[in-house]
Amino acid sequence: MPRIVLGIEYDGSAYAGWQWQNGKATVQGQLEKALTRIANQPITVLCAGRTDAGVHALEQVVHFDCEVERDMHAWLMGGNSQLPDDIRITWAQAAQGDFHARYSAIARAYRYVILNRLMKSALLRSQATWCYQKLDADAMHRAAQALLGEHDFSSFRAQSCQSVSPNRLMHFIDVYRDEQRVIIDLCANAFLHHMVRNIAGVLMEIGMGRRSVEWTSELLTIKDRSQAAMTAPPHGLHLAAVYYPEHYGVAKNALFDKLPADARRYD
Amino acid sequence: MPRIVLGIEYDGSAYAGWQWQNGKATVQGQLEKALTRIANQPITVLCAGRTDAGVHALEQVVHFDCEVERDMHAWLMGGNSQLPDDIRITWAQAAQGDFHARYSAIARAYRYVILNRLMKSALLRSQATWCYQKLDADAMHRAAQALLGEHDFSSFRAQSCQSVSPNRLMHFIDVYRDEQRVIIDLCANAFLHHMVRNIAGVLMEIGMGRRSVEWTSELLTIKDRSQAAMTAPPHGLHLAAVYYPEHYGVAKNALFDKLPADARRYD
Repeated sequence: MPRIVLGIEYDGSAYAGWQWQNGKATVQGQLEKALTRIANQPITVLCAGRTDAGVHALEQVVHFDCEVERDMHAWLMGGNSQLPDDIRITWAQAAQGDFHARYSAIARAYRYVILNRLMKSALLRSQATWCYQKLDADAMHRAAQALLGEHDFSSFRAQSCQSVSPNRLMHFIDVYRDEQRVIIDLCANAFLHHMVRNIAGVLMEIGMGRRSVEWTSELLTIKDRSQAAMTAPPHGLHLAAVYYPEHYGVAKNALFDKLPADARRYD
Repeated sequence: MPRIVLGIEYDGSAYAGWQWQNGKATVQGQLEKALTRIANQPITVLCAGRTDAGVHALEQVVHFDCEVERDMHAWLMGGNSQLPDDIRITWAQAAQGDFHARYSAIARAYRYVILNRLMKSALLRSQATWCYQKLDADAMHRAAQALLGEHDFSSFRAQSCQSVSPNRLMHFIDVYRDEQRVIIDLCANAFLHHMVRNIAGVLMEIGMGRRSVEWTSELLTIKDRSQAAMTAPPHGLHLAAVYYPEHYGVAKNALFDKLPADARRYD
């Protein structure tokens, strides 16, 4: 049965997250409804990384299996014609080999955006978290570097997290200022539930000067979520890209140019 | 009577334009309602440049006169607390000398944003115009340079334009690509009605290769709106900044760093 791979961009503001839920609008629900119309048979999609309510995606990756043959143009343009305007299919291709959107992924990149000025934003209001206290982006960047490598991220893990292991391999975290915004770019093999938002919450405390730059490494050591900062709001978070081994033929996002050469699947 | 000056940012998507209209939601109407609550007396605002339905502002400038004394914090924070979240006051200060938001302005800068890719955008859908045909941003930039200086812009002027003169002084137009977006930055002493959107429409035709780079200068010569391109959609347009003589004490936006030293009020 042919397997199709899609790139998906969405504004998560109107949705109760990625995952299908009975009676609630979700991104998966909308996408499956649109693809089911194109296929004329029920379609179920599997994604690289589920996102929570209000979280956005610049490039989520999904796959699905379908008995009927459609050319890629039909999935891309036809699918978009059936989708609401806050969800877009950005590319479509046939899966190669044993490709699986979730299990074949080596790394995920997320972007957390903070608007750092005295008043909220009229234009970015659903796509950035607002912080009116001046953030020291350099201190945040230095603090973040303690998280690189393999660690037990229990201090950054939601109680609801269902992962067997609290260990993850962090490839890079870059924190930088772009005019009124402070941006956190993160890349790991995979992320625990709420891990990016919990890291963002801790880095914001450090950026405001309430905690020292050493707090990130202290939190790694104590492995206690209750000692860390609040979970940062969902609407600043964007799933930016997913990285697969080259033999799957999925185009590599430029965000992964910084990935170490020995990056590999791990969990 | 004290005169107050405000910087205003807005997402124009939900509004029938800037100007007050009976029974319609407008940016001016929302702003006056909020300020009237803070002042406890009717407030009327005057802006630097009226914007059409669906057009946004990164920094509109307004002034108003008010008999009651309020400190700037009250106008800024109090005003924002009364405004819907798609309109923000970004700064407030007392007017100096004979400052007038419209008549004291020397120059206005607009930004027109085009998303140039195969499918529409989920994330930028209300703040960029979509063009799926590949645009040659370099050709658009070269074509735009013919518009610099003082010209009769009749070919770029809406029929509804009420200005006495069709002449305007264009200070700069820069067209450039930023990943999937093509951005047009324009600065003139003032703009005719629909002038930016008509210029954007012409430059898009040139960028798609349907017209030559020389078309802009031909249109200046023939002075006939009916010979030019369609008016580009409103939601790609942003009023970016307004420039006042330094003695008024209004902070100069970095966009005006490129202004020639002899820029002056003119119309």
